[in-house]
Amino acid sequence: MEHRIITISREFGSGGRTIGRELAARLGIPCYDAELLEQIAQASGYAREFVAEQGEYALGGSWFGQAFTGRTCQDDLWAVQNRVVRELAQKGPCVIVGRCADYILREEPGCLRVFIHADMESRARRIVEKYGERSDSPEKRLRDRDKRRAAYYQFYTDIKWGEARNYHITLNSGALGLERCVDILAGLC
Amino acid sequence: MEHRIITISREFGSGGRTIGRELAARLGIPCYDAELLEQIAQASGYAREFVAEQGEYALGGSWFGQAFTGRTCQDDLWAVQNRVVRELAQKGPCVIVGRCADYILREEPGCLRVFIHADMESRARRIVEKYGERSDSPEKRLRDRDKRRAAYYQFYTDIKWGEARNYHITLNSGALGLERCVDILAGLC
Repeated sequence: MEHRIITISREFGSGGRTIGRELAARLGIPCYDAELLEQIAQASGYAREFVAEQGEYALGGSWFGQAFTGRTCQDDLWAVQNRVVRELAQKGPCVIVGRCADYILREEPGCLRVFIHADMESRARRIVEKYGERSDSPEKRLRDRDKRRAAYYQFYTDIKWGEARNYHITLNSGALGLERCVDILAGLC
Repeated sequence: MEHRIITISREFGSGGRTIGRELAARLGIPCYDAELLEQIAQASGYAREFVAEQGEYALGGSWFGQAFTGRTCQDDLWAVQNRVVRELAQKGPCVIVGRCADYILREEPGCLRVFIHADMESRARRIVEKYGERSDSPEKRLRDRDKRRAAYYQFYTDIKWGEARNYHITLNSGALGLERCVDILAGLC
């Protein structure tokens, strides 16, 4: 395999996670997504749900903790996330979805950095199918998620989230279709 | 062919033009690049070299002309460029390199929007091979071109140049190689 590690950054609702799982299944390698959350939760002592939310979307954190240590719980999580992602990458070929793995493994040779995005319409359709209707419109939920994820990424990496130059390949899954995205990526591995 | 028109936006020195030509040759369709310059020059009455420089890199233009008409020569060129790109797209399947064609044809169904970029090192090597050494370092020349092209694009389109979301696919030609970029794109056409 030419690329040992494939990191998939994705817009919420773009199907990046599904692409990651199908790609991993096709290549016969593990895909770390939910498992990654689990490991970070175990290593950090925080609950899984807290890690899911705080480890990609939240900034700021507890003022109380910060006042004493100068670090927020997000900073602690970031450190654990860094360590867990590096350890997984050392174990062998794999797909890693989210968690700024593209940045954490930026010096790793043989790492293919992928970004998956899609137009608002197909993402809105997808999240309604997947997570159901809520009181907020799907577009509002997506805009909110995008904003938080971009802010989190920029804060910890000093890089603008979703800029083509940071990735080896970026794909619009709405226009190209999930299956074709998997085909293209499998062809690079 | 699924995509009638392929627009290739590219960083200077990334080989985007070569990818466009090879892709067009493989698909047996025309590639508009130098020809496009020629047509814009003819339609606008400006010299070819002036069009090459002003039609993608320059902002501002003559204060004298602007004071009388409120328009710069770049604004005139932009209008001609718009018309010529649309006319070419109407003629039949083709590859169009640069000239903000991705933006001009954004409503066109069957248009595949591509962005090609590469790391500074491979671009520097490429422009020295292609255009030779100059008194400025290749890195300085590249940074200058990037800055101008981004400013031009943003001014006329209100969109940030090189943002993944504006394209169906973006490829790092330095990491993936030109030939492989052509293969991937041909697979989408």
